[in-house]
Amino acid sequence: MSQSYAMTAPLTRSSVEAAHRVVAPDIHRTPVLTSSSIDTIASTPQSSESLIGTPWEGQTPASPQLKLFFKCENFQKVGAFKARGAFHALSRLSEEEVKNGVVTHSSGNHAQALAYAARTRGITAYIVMPSISTPSKIAATRGYGANVVFSGSTAAEREVVAKEVIERTGARFIPPYDHPDIILGQGTMALELEEQVKELDTESFKDDSGGRGRGLLDAVISPLGGGGMLSGIATALSGTGTRVFGSEPSFQGGDDGRRGLAEGKRITSVSTLTIADGLRTPLGEINWTVISDKSKVEGVYSVGEEQIKKAMKLLLERLKVWVEPSSCVPLAVVLFDEDFRKECVRLNVRRLGVVLSGGNTTVEAVSKLFGPDE
Amino acid sequence: MSQSYAMTAPLTRSSVEAAHRVVAPDIHRTPVLTSSSIDTIASTPQSSESLIGTPWEGQTPASPQLKLFFKCENFQKVGAFKARGAFHALSRLSEEEVKNGVVTHSSGNHAQALAYAARTRGITAYIVMPSISTPSKIAATRGYGANVVFSGSTAAEREVVAKEVIERTGARFIPPYDHPDIILGQGTMALELEEQVKELDTESFKDDSGGRGRGLLDAVISPLGGGGMLSGIATALSGTGTRVFGSEPSFQGGDDGRRGLAEGKRITSVSTLTIADGLRTPLGEINWTVISDKSKVEGVYSVGEEQIKKAMKLLLERLKVWVEPSSCVPLAVVLFDEDFRKECVRLNVRRLGVVLSGGNTTVEAVSKLFGPDE
Repeated sequence: MSQSYAMTAPLTRSSVEAAHRVVAPDIHRTPVLTSSSIDTIASTPQSSESLIGTPWEGQTPASPQLKLFFKCENFQKVGAFKARGAFHALSRLSEEEVKNGVVTHSSGNHAQALAYAARTRGITAYIVMPSISTPSKIAATRGYGANVVFSGSTAAEREVVAKEVIERTGARFIPPYDHPDIILGQGTMALELEEQVKELDTESFKDDSGGRGRGLLDAVISPLGGGGMLSGIATALSGTGTRVFGSEPSFQGGDDGRRGLAEGKRITSVSTLTIADGLRTPLGEINWTVISDKSKVEGVYSVGEEQIKKAMKLLLERLKVWVEPSSCVPLAVVLFDEDFRKECVRLNVRRLGVVLSGGNTTVEAVSKLFGPDE
Repeated sequence: MSQSYAMTAPLTRSSVEAAHRVVAPDIHRTPVLTSSSIDTIASTPQSSESLIGTPWEGQTPASPQLKLFFKCENFQKVGAFKARGAFHALSRLSEEEVKNGVVTHSSGNHAQALAYAARTRGITAYIVMPSISTPSKIAATRGYGANVVFSGSTAAEREVVAKEVIERTGARFIPPYDHPDIILGQGTMALELEEQVKELDTESFKDDSGGRGRGLLDAVISPLGGGGMLSGIATALSGTGTRVFGSEPSFQGGDDGRRGLAEGKRITSVSTLTIADGLRTPLGEINWTVISDKSKVEGVYSVGEEQIKKAMKLLLERLKVWVEPSSCVPLAVVLFDEDFRKECVRLNVRRLGVVLSGGNTTVEAVSKLFGPDE
């Protein structure tokens, strides 16, 4: 994918602000929801018994006091935050540059987002999808009028097929996550979240001493897959005093970001079948430069499959929103990762934004996760 | 239940407005959501094949043009609209009248609502629940600090136990649906829905000729169980030009409202195990006087279990909201009942409010509905 855009904006908050002005007419300003019952659970120490067999066995459970603000990108156009980056990336290209269409590879939500954004702009879209993609995601992508081209499921296999499409059609490549225009587009959600926390009546949060106080966010935690969203949020919030954290599934090495940070070197290949299927990709190169910058991203944490399911059950039953498993990883970290919970205490993180990245799953998939056989 | 309140307000729109001023500080102004994909489905005629075996076999499928506004009471306090009526009913009683507590019987959401409202007001609550109630609803009711007393599952069995509690404790009876104060409380959602439709940008609805136009609602359709909500909505909207419809499950005679209207006589006993468990109750006496008034309620329609499930799948996967089966009955009528769809064409109903009454269900219950065994 040697193609690059002629001019890209620098990765700064003001570039994210400019991106927001461009994409705002085409996207939803998604709601921010709160739940006093989830806050109570998050603010109750885990039991010592529940820590047996974990790295924190025998330690005193942390006791953070948390008020969570859920940014509901599951209500975004196409059901996921990816619409932001797709519209922004298309806005940066000339008519000439997209006259033969656009192409991308994606395990799902970026596919739908680019298909939708391209149709809105009257541009032909080719989407390279792993043949094992969720049938509902394939159908939705076709439903937005895109040409779906199948590939194997690794990043390398997808890129080969995307290259073939480019050679055959002259279509322009729109990367799923590792590009400044995508990063800046995804970062726009952080600007809205800041505004919405200010708008919300926060009187229900009785004791916020220690945090930054009403109308402000101490931190934001988002899912981390390829890293476009986390980089975007970190770019938007850099210098504001709001800390940024990432969260990953640990299953089968899906925590490539966390491991890479520990080793001081980006991990370029990941092969995991975690239920958080939007987070199976390795961290992108540009995104790595942002995420490995400690002044921008405070840290990355990971959780297991059962913890993701527990968080998902709470988000469905208590917050009453329909979310895909990838969306549930940040809350799982908040509830179950003692290292993260201790950091919240140490850093006085009390008012915490939690990104629900998307809601593209099916009743059948949820039944498989929570049915009697599991 | 011979107890009645000392003074009840008349069933008029201005009484609903007064109720709204009273309850607004304690309840959520729940969001109104829209979905272009569900609108498209609702505005596409059913196939002739899908009508085979129905009363409409061989008829030309109706072709209404619908824009749906979903009033999301699943995001209400305690997860259901019942919080409105409970707070309003308590507000009408003096300290003296509730000094020995309050009592009610309910299959679920009214139980939680009264428990929550009573705790908020510092009043003891006794809740008579059928022993076959959903475990999550029993747990939630206890979680709000109420004393749960079990009974059989018919209305008669529950009333006997409630009477025993009253005799033993001196608690005040708060009826689940058949009382003016409950009716007026539930009706407050209609006032919000009217305002919110005005607030929403409706430019996306390209052709609204025939309907009443932007910012107005042609009609509202709500679930019908005991009838408190439908009566309240009809009371609030009476004289406004917005028509009001009810919807019921037909399984095992759950459509007592529709059948009663056809016979011109209220049906007082219902025994159904429909999945729409909030709608298993017979229509109340006061509610019957409102609902059988054709100037207030235009009509009541019913749908089968599979149709409710299909509507539920759409609300979960497309609208991305967590709803219980009772909430899905109105959309099922909109999508599948040809009589209703023909009425929409005949009456120029294009802009339609759809009440999602609650979201109190579990991942296990949803898995049972949509898992491989079903």
